[in-house]
Amino acid sequence: MRLAVDALGGDNAPKEVVAGAIAAARRLPDDDVYLVGVPEEIEGHLGGTLPPNVSVHPADGPVAMDEEPAAALRSRPDASVAVAAKLVRAGEADAFFSAGSTGASVAAALLRVGRLDGCRRPAIATVLPLRNPVLLLDAGATTMCRPQDLLNFAILGGVFARRYFGLREEARIGLVNVGEEPGKGTDLARVAHGLIAASGLRFVGNVEGRDLGGGVADVLVTDGFTGNVVLKTAEGVAREVLGMVRSAVTGSLAGKLAGAALRPKLAAVREQVDPENYGGSFLLGVRGPVVIGHGNSMARGVENALLGISRSGPGLTDEMQRALLSASGEPA
Amino acid sequence: MRLAVDALGGDNAPKEVVAGAIAAARRLPDDDVYLVGVPEEIEGHLGGTLPPNVSVHPADGPVAMDEEPAAALRSRPDASVAVAAKLVRAGEADAFFSAGSTGASVAAALLRVGRLDGCRRPAIATVLPLRNPVLLLDAGATTMCRPQDLLNFAILGGVFARRYFGLREEARIGLVNVGEEPGKGTDLARVAHGLIAASGLRFVGNVEGRDLGGGVADVLVTDGFTGNVVLKTAEGVAREVLGMVRSAVTGSLAGKLAGAALRPKLAAVREQVDPENYGGSFLLGVRGPVVIGHGNSMARGVENALLGISRSGPGLTDEMQRALLSASGEPA
Repeated sequence: MRLAVDALGGDNAPKEVVAGAIAAARRLPDDDVYLVGVPEEIEGHLGGTLPPNVSVHPADGPVAMDEEPAAALRSRPDASVAVAAKLVRAGEADAFFSAGSTGASVAAALLRVGRLDGCRRPAIATVLPLRNPVLLLDAGATTMCRPQDLLNFAILGGVFARRYFGLREEARIGLVNVGEEPGKGTDLARVAHGLIAASGLRFVGNVEGRDLGGGVADVLVTDGFTGNVVLKTAEGVAREVLGMVRSAVTGSLAGKLAGAALRPKLAAVREQVDPENYGGSFLLGVRGPVVIGHGNSMARGVENALLGISRSGPGLTDEMQRALLSASGEPA
Repeated sequence: MRLAVDALGGDNAPKEVVAGAIAAARRLPDDDVYLVGVPEEIEGHLGGTLPPNVSVHPADGPVAMDEEPAAALRSRPDASVAVAAKLVRAGEADAFFSAGSTGASVAAALLRVGRLDGCRRPAIATVLPLRNPVLLLDAGATTMCRPQDLLNFAILGGVFARRYFGLREEARIGLVNVGEEPGKGTDLARVAHGLIAASGLRFVGNVEGRDLGGGVADVLVTDGFTGNVVLKTAEGVAREVLGMVRSAVTGSLAGKLAGAALRPKLAAVREQVDPENYGGSFLLGVRGPVVIGHGNSMARGVENALLGISRSGPGLTDEMQRALLSASGEPA
C-alpha cells in the first residue's frame, strides 16, 4: 500500500509523526510512505539513513486545531492534510493519515477524496481498547444519523473489522442500545434494528453499555453522538480506575513493597487499555480510508495506526463499495 | 420520612430487601419504614425483634420483570409496587422504594403518584460511582427528549444533588456532549445548552465523556438513551479493568504473594466503584421521589438506597416543584 502521512498535523508533529512513519516503513518494506508537508520542517527529523520506501512530498503547513475546517481548506488548498487527501484522490496513494484536526481530516476526505456510492455520511471507526477489542462506529463523524446511515455503518464496519482483526468468518454486528429486546431505544435505534436485521449481515442484535467489551460482537454500530460519548467514557473510566488502583497500591509502605513486584503487571493492563495501541481511528465511507491519529499521538501511536491500515488493505475500498451497492440492490 | 418499601420486588426479594429495609430503619430511628407485600411472604424474613419504626403493609405479589408494566398495574391494582405508590399518593408515605421491574416502578409513579407541574417527563437520576461521584440524569426514563426536558432535568438534578451530596453551594450542572464548545452536538444538545445557559442555574457548560468523573460538575444532564448507555458503559468498563488487574496480579506466584498484601487495597477500589454503594437510582419529576433499586440488590444496596433518600428529604418534592415553576415564570 501507498500511505500518505500528514507530517505536520498533531500536537507532536513533525517529530513524533515522522519518527512513527519511518518506524512503520521499516516494518512494511512492501509499502510506500509519503511524508507530506513543508520539506524544511520535515527534514530535520529524518534521522540517519532513510528507508528506501520513505519519501518527502511537498505541501504547505497544517490546518490548526481551532480553524474552521472547510474554510481553512478553501483558503489553503495546499495545506498538508489537503495534499495528502489529493494524493489519494489522484490514485497516487491508497490511504492518508493525519493526527491534526479531526474536522480538517474529515473535511479533506469528503471534499477531496469523496464518498463511496450509496453512502450519505461517513463514520469514524475506532477500536474500544477493552478485554475483547471491538470496532465502534460512528465515534463522531456524523452526530445526527438516519436509520439508513446506521445500516451503512454496519456494512462498512463489517468489511473493515474482518480485515483489521483477521476474522475467519463474517464479523458479528451489534447495535448499541438500552436493552436487548428489538423494540428498545429511540426511533432511530428501533428502525435501524429492523434494517440491519433484514440486511443479511451477521447481526447479533442490541448490545447494552455493560457488554461492550464482553466479546459478543466484533462491530458496534451507533450514531456519532452516542459513539463519541461511549468512546470517551470508556477511555476516561479505564484511566481513572487504573489511577485509583495505583493510588491504593502506593499509599502505604507495605503497598509500595508489594507494588514494586506488581508494577510490570499493572503496566501490562495499562498497556492493554491504552488507545495508543491502535494509534488512531478510521474514517470509513470515503474512496480510500483515512486514518485519524490521536492529536497527542507519539511515534508508537503513529506506527501502530499505519500498521493497522496496511493490514486492512489492499482492496478495502473496492470491497466496501461492492458491499454498499449489493445491500442497496444495485449491481456491484 | 416515611418510606414505603416494595418488599417483593427484585431478584433477591423478599429476603435481602427486608433485611436491608430493617437495617436502614435501625439507622434511621426518626423515619418510618413500611414493608409492602404479601404478609405471609414477608414475615418469615423479619428475624427476631423488629425495630418499632418498621411495619408490614398488606398488598398482592410483585409485578414480574417480563410483564408489560401499564397492563400489569391495570389488571393487578394491588400489586406490591402499586400499593407502595398509592401510599405516597395518599400522603401516607414520602417516597417509595422498589428493586423490581424498573418499568413497573416508573409506571406506578406516573400513574399513581403523578408528575410535578411543569414536568413533561420524569428522569432517573443515578450516581456514577467514579473518583468524584456525580449525579447523572436521565439514566433511562425518557429515551427521546426535547430540549425543555433537559432543562427540567437540570433543575431537578440541581435540587436533588445539593441535598444528596450535602453541597454548601448551588450544584454545578454540566451537559453531556461531544465537545466543550457551545455549538457542539445534536440539535437537542445545542438547544438545551442555550436553555440551561439562560436559566440562571450554575451551568458549567458541556462535559465530554472522558471528564465525567473529573469533578467538573455535580450533575450531568443528558437524554435517557445517552445516559443509560453512559451509565452501563462506565459500570462495565470499571468492572472489566478491575478484572484485568486481578487476573494480572494473580497470574504468577510472585504476583500471588504480592497480591495477598494488596487484596484489601484492590477491594477498597472495587468498593469505591461499586454501584451498590448508592444502592439505587431516583426517579425525579414526580410528586414524591421513587427509589429504583438494582434488580440484583442485596441488603446493603437496599439499606444504602434508603439512607440516601432519607438524607435528601424532607421537603424535597416541594422544593423541586417551586424550582420548576420559578424557572417557567409561574408563581411558585
